[in-house]
Amino acid sequence: MSDERYDRGIKILREHFGEQADELIAKIASASPDFAHINVTFPFGELYARDGLDQKTRELCAIAGTVCLGHALPQLRLHAIGALRCGATKQEVLEVIIQMIAYAGFPAATNALLAVSEAMDAHQADE
Amino acid sequence: MSDERYDRGIKILREHFGEQADELIAKIASASPDFAHINVTFPFGELYARDGLDQKTRELCAIAGTVCLGHALPQLRLHAIGALRCGATKQEVLEVIIQMIAYAGFPAATNALLAVSEAMDAHQADE
Amino acid sequence: MSDERYDRGIKILREHFGEQADELIAKIASASPDFAHINVTFPFGELYARDGLDQKTRELCAIAGTVCLGHALPQLRLHAIGALRCGATKQEVLEVIIQMIAYAGFPAATNALLAVSEAMDAHQADE
Amino acid sequence: MSDERYDRGIKILREHFGEQADELIAKIASASPDFAHINVTFPFGELYARDGLDQKTRELCAIAGTVCLGHALPQLRLHAIGALRCGATKQEVLEVIIQMIAYAGFPAATNALLAVSEAMDAHQADE
Amino acid sequence: MSDERYDRGIKILREHFGEQADELIAKIASASPDFAHINVTFPFGELYARDGLDQKTRELCAIAGTVCLGHALPQLRLHAIGALRCGATKQEVLEVIIQMIAYAGFPAATNALLAVSEAMDAHQADE
Amino acid sequence: MSDERYDRGIKILREHFGEQADELIAKIASASPDFAHINVTFPFGELYARDGLDQKTRELCAIAGTVCLGHALPQLRLHAIGALRCGATKQEVLEVIIQMIAYAGFPAATNALLAVSEAMDAHQADE
Repeated sequence: MSDERYDRGIKILREHFGEQADELIAKIASASPDFAHINVTFPFGELYARDGLDQKTRELCAIAGTVCLGHALPQLRLHAIGALRCGATKQEVLEVIIQMIAYAGFPAATNALLAVSEAMDAHQADE
Repeated sequence: MSDERYDRGIKILREHFGEQADELIAKIASASPDFAHINVTFPFGELYARDGLDQKTRELCAIAGTVCLGHALPQLRLHAIGALRCGATKQEVLEVIIQMIAYAGFPAATNALLAVSEAMDAHQADE
Repeated sequence: MSDERYDRGIKILREHFGEQADELIAKIASASPDFAHINVTFPFGELYARDGLDQKTRELCAIAGTVCLGHALPQLRLHAIGALRCGATKQEVLEVIIQMIAYAGFPAATNALLAVSEAMDAHQADE
Repeated sequence: MSDERYDRGIKILREHFGEQADELIAKIASASPDFAHINVTFPFGELYARDGLDQKTRELCAIAGTVCLGHALPQLRLHAIGALRCGATKQEVLEVIIQMIAYAGFPAATNALLAVSEAMDAHQADE
Repeated sequence: MSDERYDRGIKILREHFGEQADELIAKIASASPDFAHINVTFPFGELYARDGLDQKTRELCAIAGTVCLGHALPQLRLHAIGALRCGATKQEVLEVIIQMIAYAGFPAATNALLAVSEAMDAHQADE
Repeated sequence: MSDERYDRGIKILREHFGEQADELIAKIASASPDFAHINVTFPFGELYARDGLDQKTRELCAIAGTVCLGHALPQLRLHAIGALRCGATKQEVLEVIIQMIAYAGFPAATNALLAVSEAMDAHQADE
């Protein structure tokens, strides 16, 4: 019944994160197959599949949000790649993090900057 | 020396928030003139004044970030107006909040939704 | 396609929160019908519908989690009712909050205690 | 057995918060006498009773910490009074909040500033 | 005077965490003996020693709460062991984390899942 | 125009953090020179440069605040050094962390304690 959601979700995940999409889902599935299934079907199969915002803007908003969470460095590394793959420039990603200094404070923004910068450099070295 | 930053900041504040910009700064200044000055010069005179992201995208990112903070309902009400004034549609603002369910969880996203929706309705009734 | 998830979700919502379930969903729907639909289908139609934990334990865990979020007082008021309706005693709900002092600190736990206590008293006065 | 901790805690609470100490404890006790007892014996009877930091510095640190929590406005109002009663000036309290902009971000710091400023004004009007 | 609290606390700590209880307290004591003493006497000697909730439910609530904190991965690893030792199944622990997706969002829940899963596997390999 | 702010900021950074000041700014600058510049000019060139609180009290407040953020361990390690260099004793730093148990809860306070204790030991071994 949720196959359609799963197929849509995994397609969006791969468009955003490339090879890292399947690695992420496999890693989560080895801890809990149900969690992995939900992680595909709900945020990607339902939320990111919605109209009304282009995927580049969604990725910049994902970065803004996860900077403010403070505890989401693995997700920031992933969405940094997602932003680049969805058409954002490295400079735009950094710009969002600099803007978030005002909302999240320096510790969260600095930790985010260092994680995101490293992830973007590694991604660009791969290409 | 920081007059230039102040002038630039108050101009951006008024472009984003209209009349509410001066009300906000006056309210903060009545508690601490120094805090109010910093609130104009740093986030708006320095960060929002930067190139590299258009102001509509900045406002959507501000909403994404403040949803994830969880404790920033007054700021969400303000940035909802800011997003509309910078060219976002009501639907785009709601779409960011719906996306943030995945990052902030339902309590933060629901509280944000109700605050933002009320602020956008009041803003549109004023026009 | 998601009707089944919706029906299951709204049924669980009503079992947990009684009349307040429909009031909550109507309030959210007046801000965003899509958000309201997601709020029924995902947390209640999917997560709370899972086997593996009884609904009373789920409600006590929901209280533990929302105390630790710090910003979720409206949700705490609701889950306090949910816990009672799912078979928890008032004393068990208070006991979870007292335990959470260790994880969330006194400000979050105190604010939670006062909100939850008021909600439970109002609920018991209604019966 | 814990009477000594209780007596020491209530004494410190009254020194810090004056009449508001007993109001606070009574309000918490009406929700849960056990929580109220713990709130006296542990943070005040044990932690604030320790040597090694003077009570004024403790109050300024309490303000710094609760600004960064983001969700602790009732506690900020109380500790603003506590700081004044322990010898801090209004300006020192505001200075801590201004410093915390760097750590907590503007939303948390602004909400704290407005709550604390109001509480300090009300306290000074009472005297 | 607080020996009774200490003895009760260390006993509960060992019941919940086995060998890791003493390792944890020794590690904390090497940084601050006073902190270590408080960590035994207050959360375990006072809070966990209370009646009104069985220790398995307390451990599931501890997991729910620490998932929502977002920054508490070392504590999640410990309480995963505690939950198993207090009678929860691996599946129940995972179920609490899956439920917390709704409250804490995916980043906090995913990071928790991976930490907890690893800790439970290591614990079961030891037995 | 902001050279004065930069010069004042870098001077304060070096007074607080010694060699680690330049290492920190270089590391941030390699990810984003603009972020590094802002990190010098705003928190240190503007906020820490203000009168009204001595630098030792500012460092103790920085520790109190970053303990409560929960996600700021790299910053805690740095401010532990800053506190010592500004005249605080190791015992005073630990005392602030012990006090913060009440506000931040045990997980945040324990993680902070271990990070800070290690940083202070390494700093004292260097001298």
